[in-house]
Amino acid sequence: MYKVDLNSDLGESFGAYKLGMDAEILAYVSSANVACGFHAGDPVVMEETVRLAKAAGAAIGAHPGFPDLVGFGRRQMACTPQEVKAYVKYQIGALAAFTGAQGLKLQHCKPHGALYNMAAKDMALAAAIAEAVAEVDKDIILLGLAGSRMVEAGRTAGLRVAGEVFADRAYRADGTLVPRSEPGAVIHDTETAIARTVRMVKEGVVTAVTGEEVPLAADSICVHGDNPSALAFVKAIRSCLEAEGVCIAPLAEIV
Amino acid sequence: MYKVDLNSDLGESFGAYKLGMDAEILAYVSSANVACGFHAGDPVVMEETVRLAKAAGAAIGAHPGFPDLVGFGRRQMACTPQEVKAYVKYQIGALAAFTGAQGLKLQHCKPHGALYNMAAKDMALAAAIAEAVAEVDKDIILLGLAGSRMVEAGRTAGLRVAGEVFADRAYRADGTLVPRSEPGAVIHDTETAIARTVRMVKEGVVTAVTGEEVPLAADSICVHGDNPSALAFVKAIRSCLEAEGVCIAPLAEIV
Amino acid sequence: MYKVDLNSDLGESFGAYKLGMDAEILAYVSSANVACGFHAGDPVVMEETVRLAKAAGAAIGAHPGFPDLVGFGRRQMACTPQEVKAYVKYQIGALAAFTGAQGLKLQHCKPHGALYNMAAKDMALAAAIAEAVAEVDKDIILLGLAGSRMVEAGRTAGLRVAGEVFADRAYRADGTLVPRSEPGAVIHDTETAIARTVRMVKEGVVTAVTGEEVPLAADSICVHGDNPSALAFVKAIRSCLEAEGVCIAPLAEIV
Amino acid sequence: MYKVDLNSDLGESFGAYKLGMDAEILAYVSSANVACGFHAGDPVVMEETVRLAKAAGAAIGAHPGFPDLVGFGRRQMACTPQEVKAYVKYQIGALAAFTGAQGLKLQHCKPHGALYNMAAKDMALAAAIAEAVAEVDKDIILLGLAGSRMVEAGRTAGLRVAGEVFADRAYRADGTLVPRSEPGAVIHDTETAIARTVRMVKEGVVTAVTGEEVPLAADSICVHGDNPSALAFVKAIRSCLEAEGVCIAPLAEIV
Repeated sequence: MYKVDLNSDLGESFGAYKLGMDAEILAYVSSANVACGFHAGDPVVMEETVRLAKAAGAAIGAHPGFPDLVGFGRRQMACTPQEVKAYVKYQIGALAAFTGAQGLKLQHCKPHGALYNMAAKDMALAAAIAEAVAEVDKDIILLGLAGSRMVEAGRTAGLRVAGEVFADRAYRADGTLVPRSEPGAVIHDTETAIARTVRMVKEGVVTAVTGEEVPLAADSICVHGDNPSALAFVKAIRSCLEAEGVCIAPLAEIV
Repeated sequence: MYKVDLNSDLGESFGAYKLGMDAEILAYVSSANVACGFHAGDPVVMEETVRLAKAAGAAIGAHPGFPDLVGFGRRQMACTPQEVKAYVKYQIGALAAFTGAQGLKLQHCKPHGALYNMAAKDMALAAAIAEAVAEVDKDIILLGLAGSRMVEAGRTAGLRVAGEVFADRAYRADGTLVPRSEPGAVIHDTETAIARTVRMVKEGVVTAVTGEEVPLAADSICVHGDNPSALAFVKAIRSCLEAEGVCIAPLAEIV
Repeated sequence: MYKVDLNSDLGESFGAYKLGMDAEILAYVSSANVACGFHAGDPVVMEETVRLAKAAGAAIGAHPGFPDLVGFGRRQMACTPQEVKAYVKYQIGALAAFTGAQGLKLQHCKPHGALYNMAAKDMALAAAIAEAVAEVDKDIILLGLAGSRMVEAGRTAGLRVAGEVFADRAYRADGTLVPRSEPGAVIHDTETAIARTVRMVKEGVVTAVTGEEVPLAADSICVHGDNPSALAFVKAIRSCLEAEGVCIAPLAEIV
Repeated sequence: MYKVDLNSDLGESFGAYKLGMDAEILAYVSSANVACGFHAGDPVVMEETVRLAKAAGAAIGAHPGFPDLVGFGRRQMACTPQEVKAYVKYQIGALAAFTGAQGLKLQHCKPHGALYNMAAKDMALAAAIAEAVAEVDKDIILLGLAGSRMVEAGRTAGLRVAGEVFADRAYRADGTLVPRSEPGAVIHDTETAIARTVRMVKEGVVTAVTGEEVPLAADSICVHGDNPSALAFVKAIRSCLEAEGVCIAPLAEIV
């Protein structure tokens, strides 16, 4: 039987600032990536997000980012691997206090934004993240871009790893994403996006922008919940996957 | 046999900013209160401080503060108990990632600065802190001003608690400290300070500024390591205590 | 002829976080209080807010707050008058760079949140703020709670001052606001709120919760633009005031 | 007659954290670059630093950096030119509030750390900085690496520009600095460093690591004051320059 995880970034509110439709999206995803206070989130938001995710039955993971709140962790920062390793440990630990207090364990860790993208290509950063996770808790699954350095580094560090795919993004022949700055990077047609996703899950391949068939280990699909149309897409992709006989399950049941 | 803990605030550097003589003071204290990134400290500093404390054989505790880096956590902030509870959990968790990664457990938690002082008198804040500690890890000892609300709140929350005394501060008849803004608040004579401390430890009493004998549970003595004369004082108080037959031991061996 | 200013807090977005309906509310107010990066706002948001206000023809003022982004500047902080003075100067200067670059001068300064409330009662804080304004630019009008210490301190510092009133808040016999924690603090009925406001502007009095007639210098009315119903209220109060023969004009034309 | 400016980065303390020997170094430099709160400095420190510089008779300039306090502004950040432009305006304005309040004008603006280095090579960033300066105050001199894009961008923006040279750094044949990561990047011998500096000032050339004679417009020499030996070096270089007939004068008297 086919299985895949649906993950979403949550807990990105901060103080008086509200972001995302966390309560709504939690009805449809199996794994929640919770911001840890560096690029988004604050302790009160984290506590509440863990409560919501627990109530919804979603597995919880840390979503550490660069210390760049005003840039929402989306800007590359030239942090050293040692700094990144310490930042990731700090953020995982902070979130683990809230999950532990509510009787839960962290299922996974998925870096955020620029950190995610840099670590997908840079082995030193990827290794720093993987080692941080492994030193804090060997049972945490490292979730990174399918086929990337982060997945490779997780394996080297002795972690269970999971590959993430994107329903609405175009891929290059080497398995990397077409950058958003290039035309055709985003697939706007819902049906096409869903059909591609079903194929990634069931066949483990995606068609590159240049026509090649690219193999991909699709353990988890990233979905968004920041607006009503994103939410509608999540509902659609979930029901299509289920109609195709794909079971939606948290990462821990997959890898 | 008499036993007392010597504790000191450590890991208060931040990025390029260096503060404290951590490596030196660690040779003399039994417990290290490590700043957790809100009022001082950063992830790289925390990792290094845990390493230093481990090497020196000092027990490690979290030293959470208000989110006020520019004020070093010394300014009162009107945070709600719910906010304080979440802030304390967050900071304990963040530090626990570093101790856990180095095979250590957190021994205690001692709030910092304005949070410490406010919680000594305000039961709602004290309870928020105590509950945060208890929800994260029931084995963590709560260290607060001897005889204060914080100690009381820790007991109510089912925690082991420890009372902290100050070698160089004058006490009032009700067991509270004479505020620094009042004359005579600080005892500048080293011999007097040490003699008072020895008496607090061995007899459990201190003479108030108004002459009364005040009972105090002196489980731990707060010492500083920010400058060479502070360091000299720590050496002196330690050797005097030992000469008086008092054993210096971490909190976990005392309460 | 009667004249009054309508002011609103704007530019409170931060990075990826959007707050307020700035473009919409600017069609109805005469003065814009722009957040300066401490409790809300960031440099990019400030630049854009100044551009929007200029396009709408609203006068611009600084809206400095405590350095407490996660608390949105709403939590009391025990900053010293010296610190507050420096914080206010810094924030006024930062905003003045954007107004100056667009060929505008700052019209006024209205402190935000907890700083506003504390300075309304605490003469040392009020004086610190007033002196900060006066030292940076003697032409800036200080906008504070009508009848408060802030207005008094502004006068002492040689500034033009303006008194702010609240359309939807109940007043006590001494001219202070009924705290939000007490019943009846907020006037929910739109017609009542507007009628009270018209009377404050035209007669300079308001009826206290305890029935007394309280004199108030109503130079400016605070309105909000964070949601559609707030916006509807602004439209209603503006058109009622105009129907009553009250001219809406920026502070500089009033005081 | 030969003239050159001696500039130093000052006001880099933050809250409880003290950095630099500002009072001492101010006796020897003609221009002070004052940190503006993003990578270092806080409003209280800025006010005090302006006071110290004024008392010492040093001209004052803004020293804006990336919003990266924990990294001290030394880490590259992928900010957009629009963001950088807004950040620079904000920081210049903030400092101008303190200089203005003390009856002074800003003489110059010298970006800090990673922002300085990136803008030396990246024309879009350099232009963003130059335009920010020009829009806030056309009279401010832009101080950048001699011969770099920043100097070029300043000229394009219609600003007076000044080229900075480093006494203790090796140069490449193209006029750029040998990166610190390479051997020979730093000249440790004081006499050599001073002799090179005198030649840069009087002849406008420096010998590259590869032996070529490189022309350089040496308007200002960067010196440091973070430790006693740095201070000793400043005294030495100042007295040698004066002995060689070079007058030490602020930038405004040079460019």
